Amino acid sequence: MLAVAVLAAGKGTRMKSALPKVLQPLAGATLVERVLASCEQLQPERRLLIVGHQAERVEQQLQGLSDLEFVLQQPQNGTGHAVQQLLEPLNNFSGDLLVLNGDVPLLRPQTLAALLEQHRSSGAAVTLLTARLDDPSGYGRVFADANGSVSTIVEHRDCSDQQRLNHLTNAGIYCFNWAKLAEVLPKLTTDNDQGELYLTDTVALLQPAMHREVADADEIAGINDRLQLSQCETALQERLKRHWMAEGVSFVDPASCTLSEDCRFGQDVVVEPQCHFRGSSSIGDGCRIGPGCLIEDSSLGAGVTVLYSVLRQVQVADHCAIGPFAQLRPGTSLAEHCHIGNFVEVKNSSLANGVKVNHLSYIGDADLGTGVNVGAGTITANYDGVRKHRTVVGAGSKTGANSVLVAPLTLGEDVTVGAGSTITKDVPAGSLALGRARQLVKENWSNQLNQPSPPAP
Amino acid sequence: MLAVAVLAAGKGTRMKSALPKVLQPLAGATLVERVLASCEQLQPERRLLIVGHQAERVEQQLQGLSDLEFVLQQPQNGTGHAVQQLLEPLNNFSGDLLVLNGDVPLLRPQTLAALLEQHRSSGAAVTLLTARLDDPSGYGRVFADANGSVSTIVEHRDCSDQQRLNHLTNAGIYCFNWAKLAEVLPKLTTDNDQGELYLTDTVALLQPAMHREVADADEIAGINDRLQLSQCETALQERLKRHWMAEGVSFVDPASCTLSEDCRFGQDVVVEPQCHFRGSSSIGDGCRIGPGCLIEDSSLGAGVTVLYSVLRQVQVADHCAIGPFAQLRPGTSLAEHCHIGNFVEVKNSSLANGVKVNHLSYIGDADLGTGVNVGAGTITANYDGVRKHRTVVGAGSKTGANSVLVAPLTLGEDVTVGAGSTITKDVPAGSLALGRARQLVKENWSNQLNQPSPPAP
Amino acid sequence: MLAVAVLAAGKGTRMKSALPKVLQPLAGATLVERVLASCEQLQPERRLLIVGHQAERVEQQLQGLSDLEFVLQQPQNGTGHAVQQLLEPLNNFSGDLLVLNGDVPLLRPQTLAALLEQHRSSGAAVTLLTARLDDPSGYGRVFADANGSVSTIVEHRDCSDQQRLNHLTNAGIYCFNWAKLAEVLPKLTTDNDQGELYLTDTVALLQPAMHREVADADEIAGINDRLQLSQCETALQERLKRHWMAEGVSFVDPASCTLSEDCRFGQDVVVEPQCHFRGSSSIGDGCRIGPGCLIEDSSLGAGVTVLYSVLRQVQVADHCAIGPFAQLRPGTSLAEHCHIGNFVEVKNSSLANGVKVNHLSYIGDADLGTGVNVGAGTITANYDGVRKHRTVVGAGSKTGANSVLVAPLTLGEDVTVGAGSTITKDVPAGSLALGRARQLVKENWSNQLNQPSPPAP
Repeated sequence: MLAVAVLAAGKGTRMKSALPKVLQPLAGATLVERVLASCEQLQPERRLLIVGHQAERVEQQLQGLSDLEFVLQQPQNGTGHAVQQLLEPLNNFSGDLLVLNGDVPLLRPQTLAALLEQHRSSGAAVTLLTARLDDPSGYGRVFADANGSVSTIVEHRDCSDQQRLNHLTNAGIYCFNWAKLAEVLPKLTTDNDQGELYLTDTVALLQPAMHREVADADEIAGINDRLQLSQCETALQERLKRHWMAEGVSFVDPASCTLSEDCRFGQDVVVEPQCHFRGSSSIGDGCRIGPGCLIEDSSLGAGVTVLYSVLRQVQVADHCAIGPFAQLRPGTSLAEHCHIGNFVEVKNSSLANGVKVNHLSYIGDADLGTGVNVGAGTITANYDGVRKHRTVVGAGSKTGANSVLVAPLTLGEDVTVGAGSTITKDVPAGSLALGRARQLVKENWSNQLNQPSPPAP
Repeated sequence: MLAVAVLAAGKGTRMKSALPKVLQPLAGATLVERVLASCEQLQPERRLLIVGHQAERVEQQLQGLSDLEFVLQQPQNGTGHAVQQLLEPLNNFSGDLLVLNGDVPLLRPQTLAALLEQHRSSGAAVTLLTARLDDPSGYGRVFADANGSVSTIVEHRDCSDQQRLNHLTNAGIYCFNWAKLAEVLPKLTTDNDQGELYLTDTVALLQPAMHREVADADEIAGINDRLQLSQCETALQERLKRHWMAEGVSFVDPASCTLSEDCRFGQDVVVEPQCHFRGSSSIGDGCRIGPGCLIEDSSLGAGVTVLYSVLRQVQVADHCAIGPFAQLRPGTSLAEHCHIGNFVEVKNSSLANGVKVNHLSYIGDADLGTGVNVGAGTITANYDGVRKHRTVVGAGSKTGANSVLVAPLTLGEDVTVGAGSTITKDVPAGSLALGRARQLVKENWSNQLNQPSPPAP
Repeated sequence: MLAVAVLAAGKGTRMKSALPKVLQPLAGATLVERVLASCEQLQPERRLLIVGHQAERVEQQLQGLSDLEFVLQQPQNGTGHAVQQLLEPLNNFSGDLLVLNGDVPLLRPQTLAALLEQHRSSGAAVTLLTARLDDPSGYGRVFADANGSVSTIVEHRDCSDQQRLNHLTNAGIYCFNWAKLAEVLPKLTTDNDQGELYLTDTVALLQPAMHREVADADEIAGINDRLQLSQCETALQERLKRHWMAEGVSFVDPASCTLSEDCRFGQDVVVEPQCHFRGSSSIGDGCRIGPGCLIEDSSLGAGVTVLYSVLRQVQVADHCAIGPFAQLRPGTSLAEHCHIGNFVEVKNSSLANGVKVNHLSYIGDADLGTGVNVGAGTITANYDGVRKHRTVVGAGSKTGANSVLVAPLTLGEDVTVGAGSTITKDVPAGSLALGRARQLVKENWSNQLNQPSPPAP
């Protein structure tokens, strides 16, 4: 049996935020959600979140996790005090307790699995996670023998110069035999600088105490301020990009791009600088993305190119070309070989194979048939001030420059709309639709003007 | 009494620039302006700038600083020669002289304050600023005892291997007792490789000579080429971003963003990658900016979102949403809850609460009332070729797609402008205004064409 | 006589690519093209490319290099096996053989020239390129005396702990006396872990064997995966940007910008963050580019500013201002002092001095005379569905907002086109051309509506 407890009661004063620390976002997920996700694979029988500062807000954010138990720590009197709050809810629990910190978001699932496995196979009363840091300043030092048996932990401020040469530090992540921990928890005292109860102090009371050193010290980075938050973001991003490079994705300038964990990339995708992939997106084989793209919750087929554009909740089939300076908004789907050019917005529309919308257009709530060519400056007037209406354009039709299609409207196949026309009534297939005034010319206009102001330029 | 002298006579050959080195910009201010600003808090009685190369251009740039004295050094024969030029203007001066370099722009005011204070309290004849550098190559080494008393300074090229192990370097920043310095300045000789007079050589002639080590060695970085210029920009930017992170601003990728020193940020602002804040801008609580924004001399209220947009000299009230791909130009003010969408330019206009300009529009010299909805492709024709005229649109009005409002023009409240209309005359409140031709349809058009060219698509 | 052989037979499994490794791109050129270019200055009499994996694709890519000899290695049984394939084509060759790796793209021409020169002046049978690496893990260690004479090479896995302290590594780049190499090549055996024939093993059989250490260890970086590819890109980019900074170009944030090797920059160019220069572009003195620009195969005069824009195959004369959010496409030329504003696309067009296209326009296949002012929303309808036609606008003409110019079309000088007009017929000089319906107003429209839906907004 396994219980996991996550310490999430702290305010995070140094964040200077209206948000409790564990709700700060990192690569699209809150810190505490990341910590909870890191132990999902362990399939714990119990999951407890120790909340305190803005407890209601934290609970509200996590209410979707039905089996999560919230345990209130009020006031917040140290990590030992936090875990003491578990004595009641885990009264009848028998097994191991894994204690995680809500502000240590980079732990890998396999690290926790290995910690738990070692803890169980060694029969230790407590196994703590340790890391060898280049700069261990501020961290408690763990003194252990070659077998991993911990003799003592000394806080940084209490270390002698000699002790400070030890770079093995306490990560604050523990596996306990719950029964043994429950015995010693009541013995903690506030006999220290901060007047708090420290969970660390239980280690000296538990035998045998073991440790396991994490291979990648970045995993144990804790977040106390926004600088550390950005450093964790960078570390997480590097992890994600290295993963995808190993899978066959080229990043021209990896440091300039951000990914979410739910993005997927095909082989031979080339990501140019300054691209950002959010939510749950998938990018097909051989796509070339960027520079300068934001792609969120979208799916791209193979061989798509996107340049300086924003795509959100859209479906793009193979061999489409998008941008520069285009926006595809939710509900848009592009079939194969569509071209979306500069200053084009498409929203909630379906474009069939080979549709071209090359310049300065707004296509909203429209269905465009195969091979439709949308002229520059074409607008679908889909909104009458109250409702949105649909525009349907048949295959092979063309709209002229600066034309307006006033919805609800249906154009048949092979319709031609003249430049500068506002079309308000349906047009049968094969027709030319026009709606513009005859051209008038007033000669010698500029000579007659003493003042160069024309009537209506 | 305090006099500050800034050495600003050098050409900066390695910059390969038409601009004198001290006028190169760093985060929006010239190097010499930064150096002058760094000692403002000391409130010196005298401020002297030693100019030489392109002296007139430097003086012109700084003519706004009324109390600044320009001292010409012609030719430029070394730092000692430069300070010798002060013998005349400071003839009657009694007090301390702080000597700064015009190409060392990162010194913090508090560093200079501490240097001056130590100099005065110790009674030294000279106190020099030192730094402990990881790589001291090229720098003169300062040999001093534990009390800060300087025994000698040895130039890098004259150091023995043993001496080179000393990483305490001379930053070239000095506090002098002016009377004592004035006595020894005439004794400098050109007895060295370069045949120049070195200010450093005065230290050996002055007793007691002390030093003060700067905590952050980045502060003494000098700029001789564009690589060092970019490194100082990076160091300065990092300083600025760390400051704002400590104040409660999240930067997702701090390295990709630039700030000016006069920007202010509220709490819980999130800055996405590749954003640039220039001039004197302020960003309200909870704004989300970026990716890809340039904001200059603008003020944003709380909860504003901006995406891939350029804002210059604009006022934006709370809860507006801007972008992607929008430009707000000088003289624009947005009241609360305005929406500015893609491919929209607004210039010298005032938008009341809740105005929406969602797509492909140019709004110039206009006043839009509460809740106005500007249709896609709407243009204010504000320019008759000679003058700009104003467009006024009453509250609750709507413009159709691809409409043109020819200024000067006033639309009353609740006016509806039909799609594709060019409006040249004022429209009373509550009216529908139309200006478009009747729709014509020629059937079987595409069948009749042997060549698919329509008359005027 | 000199022969150069490039090893290019490998698959590059860890790239996970449909492309053979040597065809992966780096800063716009394939790896193998870079390696071939690095030895061009040596003017070798023979150039041989040893191909294997996807040999046809590699040959096809390089078919433009007429003197290149392709030598097939099938199967790929190690570097020694690869060079054995040269025994036949170089049967009658007398002179030196330089062996390069197709996946080591950062070698400088002068490094190879120095290697060859030392090889020839020393009379060595083989001279190998070495590098002193901070982290030599995985590399073979070269043991040599102070004169550069190599005693032995030990593979990393065979090194004792003591030997691993030697950071002098084998770069895998060799100069051989071909006659001597040809004698020992048949003696190689597969007596090793991988069961392959290693070229390294020839060194022990050749006397005298010398080495030359490369000054910049980055040059010998090999590419086996996408992470190394991105690291080489970064190293190459840093080299390019340092070069241009030394030549008088300011990069505000060099790490965020990419250059190709064929770009040229004038003095006092300022490159803002996130700019990318591709192909063969030249940027004149005093230009200010960025943030956020992509410039490819384009030439800019002096004093041009470009902001958030894309330029490809265009010519821009002095003092033009472009952007933000503009696209200039191939075949566009701008004379001096043109202004291209936001949401403007120009394609295959010629703009004379002082032309202004400030907002929301598409100019395609057009010739605009001196001082033409293109109103917001103006579109050239250059495409009739089959052919592109040209639009000619005389000097001093102005087009109104949302006007359409339907090509083929010629407007004379000083023509004024009214706002909202679609112009299909030529207009003589000095005329006003209009094509729009009279404005109608229906008063009390909004009061009469029970439902707020207007007939055709």
